Amino acid sequence: MTTRELAKDFVALLKQGKHDEAGNAYNADTIVSYESMDGPMAVCRGKDAVRKKGEWWVANHEVHEMTADGPYFNGDQFVVNFYVDVTVKESGERRKMNEFGLYTVENGKIVEERFFY
Amino acid sequence: MTTRELAKDFVALLKQGKHDEAGNAYNADTIVSYESMDGPMAVCRGKDAVRKKGEWWVANHEVHEMTADGPYFNGDQFVVNFYVDVTVKESGERRKMNEFGLYTVENGKIVEERFFY
Repeated sequence: MTTRELAKDFVALLKQGKHDEAGNAYNADTIVSYESMDGPMAVCRGKDAVRKKGEWWVANHEVHEMTADGPYFNGDQFVVNFYVDVTVKESGERRKMNEFGLYTVENGKIVEERFFY
Repeated sequence: MTTRELAKDFVALLKQGKHDEAGNAYNADTIVSYESMDGPMAVCRGKDAVRKKGEWWVANHEVHEMTADGPYFNGDQFVVNFYVDVTVKESGERRKMNEFGLYTVENGKIVEERFFY
């Protein structure tokens, strides 16, 4: 499977809201995930840890709308453009924002994801 | 100047259509530029070469609309979302597309730019 094929299927799953399935299918066991923040949540290592971060996010946000646009390519990397409209459950704050995911593929798996906002 | 300050000023110049000024002000002499293609245009090394690539692009496209949205941050990297509506002068083909620039900053200058489409 080429990077383009992987990315198109990955984003097709995201567009259906199937974030868990997308990660289960394509994240490498050794994936490293970088958020755009300081502190202990900034870097997350390993497929299980990334899955748990996703579960935490889902549990702590009420999602009004979430769309994924892409993939956009350069070599073995691709970009996905997310639009999210959520309420943070703890604070009640409503957030509407664009966010970008930069994914790096090696040997048919995503070995790094890096988020920009 | 922090990466955030640099990026905000850089994108402010892009939003005014001042791509030359943005590159002159913030590109490192050693900048490397990666397009999303194969062949000799794929990688461009050095501030002068990147400026010439920009001049070639401007000379060969009729721009109907070009917008820049961003910057979006992660550490010393930032993403800019471009929308371009152009006619390729040689072929007459009209292209409307989203494109993403990923910029890497070191010591107050942009040392790498990488385009996704």
